[in-house]
Amino acid sequence: MNFSDLIEKKKQGKAHSEDEINFIVSSYMSGEASDAQAAAWTAAVYFKGMTLDETVSLTEALGKSGKIINFGELGDKIADKHSTGGVGDKVTITLIPLLAAAGLPVAKLADRTLGASAGTVDKLEAIPNLNTNLSSGMIVNQVKNINAVIASQADDLAPADKKMYALRNEIGILNSAPLVASSIIAKKIASGASNIIIDVKYGSGACMRTLEDARELANLLVKVAKRLDKSLTAIITSMEEPLGRAVGHAIEVIEAIEFLKGHCDNGDLAELTYAIGAATLLHMDLYNNDAEAVSYLKNLVHSGRALEKFKELIIAQGGAPDVIENYDKFTLPAFKIQCEAKKSGFVQNISADNISCAAKALGALRDGMSKPVDLSVGIYLNKKSGEYVSKGEVLFTIYANTEESAKIAQMYCDNAFSVSESKPSRNSLIYKIISTKDEDENV
Amino acid sequence: MNFSDLIEKKKQGKAHSEDEINFIVSSYMSGEASDAQAAAWTAAVYFKGMTLDETVSLTEALGKSGKIINFGELGDKIADKHSTGGVGDKVTITLIPLLAAAGLPVAKLADRTLGASAGTVDKLEAIPNLNTNLSSGMIVNQVKNINAVIASQADDLAPADKKMYALRNEIGILNSAPLVASSIIAKKIASGASNIIIDVKYGSGACMRTLEDARELANLLVKVAKRLDKSLTAIITSMEEPLGRAVGHAIEVIEAIEFLKGHCDNGDLAELTYAIGAATLLHMDLYNNDAEAVSYLKNLVHSGRALEKFKELIIAQGGAPDVIENYDKFTLPAFKIQCEAKKSGFVQNISADNISCAAKALGALRDGMSKPVDLSVGIYLNKKSGEYVSKGEVLFTIYANTEESAKIAQMYCDNAFSVSESKPSRNSLIYKIISTKDEDENV
Repeated sequence: MNFSDLIEKKKQGKAHSEDEINFIVSSYMSGEASDAQAAAWTAAVYFKGMTLDETVSLTEALGKSGKIINFGELGDKIADKHSTGGVGDKVTITLIPLLAAAGLPVAKLADRTLGASAGTVDKLEAIPNLNTNLSSGMIVNQVKNINAVIASQADDLAPADKKMYALRNEIGILNSAPLVASSIIAKKIASGASNIIIDVKYGSGACMRTLEDARELANLLVKVAKRLDKSLTAIITSMEEPLGRAVGHAIEVIEAIEFLKGHCDNGDLAELTYAIGAATLLHMDLYNNDAEAVSYLKNLVHSGRALEKFKELIIAQGGAPDVIENYDKFTLPAFKIQCEAKKSGFVQNISADNISCAAKALGALRDGMSKPVDLSVGIYLNKKSGEYVSKGEVLFTIYANTEESAKIAQMYCDNAFSVSESKPSRNSLIYKIISTKDEDENV
Repeated sequence: MNFSDLIEKKKQGKAHSEDEINFIVSSYMSGEASDAQAAAWTAAVYFKGMTLDETVSLTEALGKSGKIINFGELGDKIADKHSTGGVGDKVTITLIPLLAAAGLPVAKLADRTLGASAGTVDKLEAIPNLNTNLSSGMIVNQVKNINAVIASQADDLAPADKKMYALRNEIGILNSAPLVASSIIAKKIASGASNIIIDVKYGSGACMRTLEDARELANLLVKVAKRLDKSLTAIITSMEEPLGRAVGHAIEVIEAIEFLKGHCDNGDLAELTYAIGAATLLHMDLYNNDAEAVSYLKNLVHSGRALEKFKELIIAQGGAPDVIENYDKFTLPAFKIQCEAKKSGFVQNISADNISCAAKALGALRDGMSKPVDLSVGIYLNKKSGEYVSKGEVLFTIYANTEESAKIAQMYCDNAFSVSESKPSRNSLIYKIISTKDEDENV
């Protein structure tokens, strides 16, 4: 077999056999195939697609390319929540403690900040001393001890996925459904998760720009999971504006803590956290009724048990738990600028794209893995869409370390907001939920 | 400007500005853009194409990326013949001495063996001591002294084209018309050629597989040349079976010498050599009539003047001219196998693809630039299509250095030939000739 011939085959739109997929992955890992060859193959897949059989083969080849975490007898209970990524999405930080407080063993292997959105691993590292570089043994132990862990993907877990994902990021080919689906499920194979909940986002702040693309990806995730005997629920949600009010690292963790304290039970962050949480409980047959599940979860927040679980997680991973009571313990930015509304009216929409550009200008995002990220900066949306703002009232707040970056960020944020007299109608946050348990998985 | 954004733009099928094309070339040359990024961009161009404006910009950026040979007052007279490549194509070796004997200054920068066909530079190096690594100064001098030079493309001539061509070869994206056209004409910009004759081949033994693709490329070559004020003639020719009878290195040079000796005035090699030669004379307004031009060229062969010019070229480039009289002076293979026809009949066709695979099995081709090529081996086609062969008569001859490679080559060659009772009708070798001098360049 020859890598060049396989590029040519995919250029012509033909399907690879399982052996060919294995050869592609193994020869890229061994270095026999070059970055350039793998990039050309990836581009050909972007333009010509892959069949379900090919996608399943690729998922397995990536997932089994390294170590697989073994949770022993807990194995078929382990839950994992994953988001395809969006601006301001801190649901992992709100949801993992909540599910663990509900008695579910949750092991989350999270990503670093890359592309247009901040990553959970970097966000958590805004908590002084918190360690996310855990070995497989430490991950298994922590789940056994406190039901919850959030770790970065170790180098020996699905290394082929890591290498291929880094390549896709380098060449900007992130939005191919078969490549995204195989990358997501491969990570779950390696992390030993049995019950997988995926938040598939669409809109200007997401990797999948249209509902059509998100539906394609959600359907594919369910189909691939079925073929691999994994239990999976996909929740298609809108990402037209940033989720919640904070965009950055430390300030997103603070917003998540505020939620866990029961201080923000309204709004899209709460809505999505409870919806995904309830879907997980239903998916695992712990509840039959969505309203009951949500009510149970709300009780876990308001009783303080979810926050307590987050504190346990911080301590287990070596972090300083006093950040929960004293936000000054986070690394703070040099200054903040409160920006006022230039006219009165209802906020119509907040462009996630523009807010992401503002975050990038502040230094909260990065292009390549080698560059550092400023965990202290960010943007706080004092008003969100549907809310009324009076001229002169604070519309958003910039947290910055340099005046120059603050100026650029402010410009992007000014452009992000549209304000007018009529109250906007909003699409619902959650479009649809599909699962491997459905008879017909197509949405 | 950002390379990733430009990949995305091309993925969406949008056209680049001249500045963007310059940025792509310069950032790939500087190493700022990686091989993987350049490969993804190249694949996007393959799938989405380029406009004429983009192709012209790319041609200029590649052509002016290094040194440009300056022939001084000879500048607007220099002719250059180029072929898009085909199995057994040794027309450069027959034609350059012939044109030089006709009084034309010809400077040919030739390629090495790569992909499915042997390169002129490697073929000439089958002549003991012959040097093709000439500096710009040596190239100019030799043309002034004897009217003819065949050199390899020096590292400082169109280095960006060299780097991009190597990448395209690595990822197997060789047949994109805008990339092929810009690569060909860029080399001519750097080599200082003013009168460019391009043999655009189509068929199973060529880079362009179909007549449609060859027409597209020929039209594009003429359009790009017009925009860059270069004088260019494109000749669309069929490459369904190997050209001439010899396929390899030394044995192709021997066949070329036989032609220059006037020993093979019939057959496709002679037809194509005279046709391209005559087109060149007409293109340069030295003749008005094709038949007269061919007759003049035949006279140069039969009077021995073309062969004399080839001898001068060998001597000027440090080679041993006695190979012309004594073919044993070439490096010879260990043995030859004469393979007989298994039935009587007319040869219908000889698959250039299969013969190329046979040459590869013998060691006459290579995958990467670093691997050596065996200049002594090859295949001789004792019969060509349209010719009658009796059962037991020699059909082809294998020149090999190992028995194992000979066996594989023989298998490929056996499959390459089809023989049956009726005499086949042949498409004409030359489909059409178009030029920058035509009013309407479309074919």
